[in-house]
Amino acid sequence: MVLDKIKKTGDIKNIDPSEYKELAEEIRTFLIESLSKTGGHLGANLGVVELTMALHLELDLPKDKIVWDVGHQSYTHKILTGRKDEFSKLRQFGGLSGFPKRAESDCDVFDTGHSSTSISAALGMAAARDLEGGDETIVAVIGDGSLTGGMAYEALNNAGKTDSNLIIILNDNNMSISENVGGVPKYLNSIRTSNGYLDLKEGVYNRIADKSFGKPIVTTIRRAKNSIKSLLMPGMLFEDMGVVYLGPVDGHDIDAVRRAIREAKRFKRAVLIHAITQKGKGFGPAERHPARFHGSGPFDIETGVPTKHGSATWTDVFSTVMFKLGERNPKIVAITAAMAEGTGLKRFRGKFPDRFFDVGIAEQHAVTFAAGMATRGFIPVVAIYSSFLQRAYDQILHDVCLQKLHVVFAVDRSGLVGADGETHQGVFDLSYLSSIPNMTILAPKNKWELSDMMKFAVAFDGPVAVRYPRGESYDGLEDHRDPVELGKAEWIVREEGIALLAVGNMNETAVKVREILKSKGKNVSIINARFVKPFDKECIDEICRSHHLIVTLEDNVRSGGFGEAVSDYLKSMDAATEILCVSMGDEFVPQGSVDKLRSILGADPEGIVASIEKKLSLGI
Amino acid sequence: MVLDKIKKTGDIKNIDPSEYKELAEEIRTFLIESLSKTGGHLGANLGVVELTMALHLELDLPKDKIVWDVGHQSYTHKILTGRKDEFSKLRQFGGLSGFPKRAESDCDVFDTGHSSTSISAALGMAAARDLEGGDETIVAVIGDGSLTGGMAYEALNNAGKTDSNLIIILNDNNMSISENVGGVPKYLNSIRTSNGYLDLKEGVYNRIADKSFGKPIVTTIRRAKNSIKSLLMPGMLFEDMGVVYLGPVDGHDIDAVRRAIREAKRFKRAVLIHAITQKGKGFGPAERHPARFHGSGPFDIETGVPTKHGSATWTDVFSTVMFKLGERNPKIVAITAAMAEGTGLKRFRGKFPDRFFDVGIAEQHAVTFAAGMATRGFIPVVAIYSSFLQRAYDQILHDVCLQKLHVVFAVDRSGLVGADGETHQGVFDLSYLSSIPNMTILAPKNKWELSDMMKFAVAFDGPVAVRYPRGESYDGLEDHRDPVELGKAEWIVREEGIALLAVGNMNETAVKVREILKSKGKNVSIINARFVKPFDKECIDEICRSHHLIVTLEDNVRSGGFGEAVSDYLKSMDAATEILCVSMGDEFVPQGSVDKLRSILGADPEGIVASIEKKLSLGI
Repeated sequence: MVLDKIKKTGDIKNIDPSEYKELAEEIRTFLIESLSKTGGHLGANLGVVELTMALHLELDLPKDKIVWDVGHQSYTHKILTGRKDEFSKLRQFGGLSGFPKRAESDCDVFDTGHSSTSISAALGMAAARDLEGGDETIVAVIGDGSLTGGMAYEALNNAGKTDSNLIIILNDNNMSISENVGGVPKYLNSIRTSNGYLDLKEGVYNRIADKSFGKPIVTTIRRAKNSIKSLLMPGMLFEDMGVVYLGPVDGHDIDAVRRAIREAKRFKRAVLIHAITQKGKGFGPAERHPARFHGSGPFDIETGVPTKHGSATWTDVFSTVMFKLGERNPKIVAITAAMAEGTGLKRFRGKFPDRFFDVGIAEQHAVTFAAGMATRGFIPVVAIYSSFLQRAYDQILHDVCLQKLHVVFAVDRSGLVGADGETHQGVFDLSYLSSIPNMTILAPKNKWELSDMMKFAVAFDGPVAVRYPRGESYDGLEDHRDPVELGKAEWIVREEGIALLAVGNMNETAVKVREILKSKGKNVSIINARFVKPFDKECIDEICRSHHLIVTLEDNVRSGGFGEAVSDYLKSMDAATEILCVSMGDEFVPQGSVDKLRSILGADPEGIVASIEKKLSLGI
Repeated sequence: MVLDKIKKTGDIKNIDPSEYKELAEEIRTFLIESLSKTGGHLGANLGVVELTMALHLELDLPKDKIVWDVGHQSYTHKILTGRKDEFSKLRQFGGLSGFPKRAESDCDVFDTGHSSTSISAALGMAAARDLEGGDETIVAVIGDGSLTGGMAYEALNNAGKTDSNLIIILNDNNMSISENVGGVPKYLNSIRTSNGYLDLKEGVYNRIADKSFGKPIVTTIRRAKNSIKSLLMPGMLFEDMGVVYLGPVDGHDIDAVRRAIREAKRFKRAVLIHAITQKGKGFGPAERHPARFHGSGPFDIETGVPTKHGSATWTDVFSTVMFKLGERNPKIVAITAAMAEGTGLKRFRGKFPDRFFDVGIAEQHAVTFAAGMATRGFIPVVAIYSSFLQRAYDQILHDVCLQKLHVVFAVDRSGLVGADGETHQGVFDLSYLSSIPNMTILAPKNKWELSDMMKFAVAFDGPVAVRYPRGESYDGLEDHRDPVELGKAEWIVREEGIALLAVGNMNETAVKVREILKSKGKNVSIINARFVKPFDKECIDEICRSHHLIVTLEDNVRSGGFGEAVSDYLKSMDAATEILCVSMGDEFVPQGSVDKLRSILGADPEGIVASIEKKLSLGI
């Protein structure tokens, strides 16, 4: 095996070029086999095997720097930097991260996870290099999907004025997670389908530039080239922004990519190399179903079929209710940021294509676009994952809530998400949404309540967020289905003594906590908070009258979350009832199974019971 | 006076075209005279007088919609919609807003204030129109500065695929607030300086399109045009994104702009009209000093010199300390988002041009660019106004704090800012910053402490924010200058009974509150919180031992702010000491003088004393 020769960073440089093709194949086979057991971002990684090899061949790591946009395509990079043996624990607690992590390797220079950050970070590193007089090469690798995010343009606009080298590799597979949308992807496509690839061997312009006497000649050629280059050469969009364009090159042709990198290094400018790649390359099922293999669980290698079949997810429930709401009310429209599949809006799109808007990886635009529609009497449901919605904090505040517009936020992947780790945990939404005036926030305890809350939200008038977690939906507590009323909590079990006041899916945990406490002879009420903002003060007053301890349960950070608000309320009312706040604390939560993470955070049933017993022994 | 004929929306259509020039002059004179008394955004408004007139002549308001990006250039629009007489109370409490407000007029269709939102909102309105089968014209007016914000590109990318009409007017004055930066502005400049304006009378392409039989001909012409258009026509950048480009046109030529609007209306596409305007046009001082007249206070009409001379501001203090820190430590770099003047970084730029980075109106990029530099050992100080930094919430969280990078945030314009109103009040930063793990937050009580805290922040290791308000810096409490220590509060006055625990400039208020309470025979301590995160728990324990009431004082919303955290802490410790939290509540705070707004919110000395007395009478 050629792959066995790769033990550490730089080993690839000792491989004979005749073996590159074999190495690429072996890496693919390794990824497919390994990910069939652990799950992971297979499609994106199969697409960049050769591109990554070319980078490692042309660069001198760790001196040179590669910033991976989003970062889920860094598996080959991890293999080439000596981390192959750790793939058996990929995305597991304490194991190899599915994203670049500075703590993991000195070849991982910037932690990523969200889209469109790489050019900004790389430009910062280049500025630092220039101030220090360094000569390292700095590369950002960014997908065409990430290029629909505005932040990438902010960075390109700045890159356009740099007078030192920065290499941007556009890894163009014509996909974000869903299919790409918008003018720029269409533009890239027009390049892809134009006549042939630019032959870099013909790089006359650059050869002349190399000679010291060549400057005036270059200027002349360049001037002439400018006026006709759009006829001869694609990439004007980037050139217009001040970024040199090289390409397109075949991203699976190691030599071609290497030549492009060598050419790019010569410029004292920002250079974009347009590499065409195929997502899922080399694995039939992933080539045919790129969205399904974007991030997948374990699967059967022969068929690509998932080996684990989960029950219905919260997303499935949302998908169904949106479909039904769409049928009932023609004013309801759905908006997603490149996540039609992930958010479950595919079904709505199928039935109501005119009322479905995929804006690309552009959360900011998604929210303000929704605000624009809301001013004209439509009811936009904006479905975005909790951690990605962070990017639209200002738009939610400034464009929706300030004008008190009726926009519904369907905040999927709230709370702990597990394997994707720190960057994807949805543990901030209760805080950032609560800080905004005019916002109403709900969280359902079970699948029926998600349905009821969505109905409430579209019938409401004003900004409203319904947040629900990743994974299997809860179908317990099915007998509790009081109508959803603004600001009203719901009593699940009414006793005296200890009150568990739970947000959303923490009701499931509350049921388990109560079981343990009951077995120890305690009386325990369960109250489903339903509304985090405005929360039910009357209910809390009522709880206080017959309970000596309120335990708030939420899968959100402590600061600005539900528990803090309730605690503050109790204090301000001078209530005698004590409080214990169970939350995700004040730290970034790493990857791992949700159960494992909960137990570490003391937010699993056993941990919560232990905290309650400690609180009781201290206080009351 | 021609202007006297404008009483309400549409009246401009009854003016004889021969009087347009006179009307424009009268509007300018009115604006200069009126704003010389009230202050306001003079420069931007003088630049769009003719452009606004052309819009009002060609559109049918309120049926047609104009979305003003940022919105500070909407004064002529306000005059032409019958609000001229309200200019005497411009930007004052209860008076005319300096920005579009839906509550003010049915011709204001979207509230703005922050940059780069207009195309998104307009596109949302266009989508709503298309679903309803409406035929109204929708226009976004956006400055070239706003075009450096990534959100505008997200929207352009989406506009590029629309198959119905949307008009984007690029109001290109080659300025944001400071001078523009980056590749795109440079690109726009190359158009501006190219040979002559496109003669719209020659619009052959569009005339043919008008005839029903013309379609195939048009296609042929269009195809030919595409291949040579970059030779004939500027604006390829936008055309590449799928947006039709018309221009450039002289934005001060009413007829030219009107013709362009009429042409633009014919497309079933998004059309960008590139209008060249001059900021401050018609007022010498504003033409010569555009940055000074971006947003100005009252001024002398003859000379343009401000009639009020304030004392040194917090920004001035920051400016000086940055200059000194820059001299002392070559690793310190300064980053601003189009606000070199506003943030006081001009002086740093003058002395250390290589270590100064103005990234344009691109807060997201600014923060991640800083993160990139921090990974390479530099100490970036990112100076952004509190309300604009909201746009970088995700980047602060995901790119800086997650990696625990040493980036210093200088959060200017925190707390109430006054005349700019809802969109500019910096009352959320303590909440959104506190929600993020690894963040440290400081607020100085007076100008010396701002200096000390900046020194602390650059010597610190990790993400750290120093937040300070707009306006005159406080120079009281000059004898209190204990060294700044991580997480340590500072005792200002030590008595027993009531403790005022104040954040930043609320210490000045605390001094006044104490005076009143002392005159009423109360014993009152003052403690300067200094750190909002982590706050000083030991100090609070100490306060509790000798005080029956803690009053927290902050100019931030309640949810997720300082008071809530302290209240929560007291509750969790089962402290007997009561708490009263003075904050900016849970609402958007309108325009008005800071004193006026404080008094309405009960956060002025008298209001606070009244709340304390009420609390005491109820409780203790």
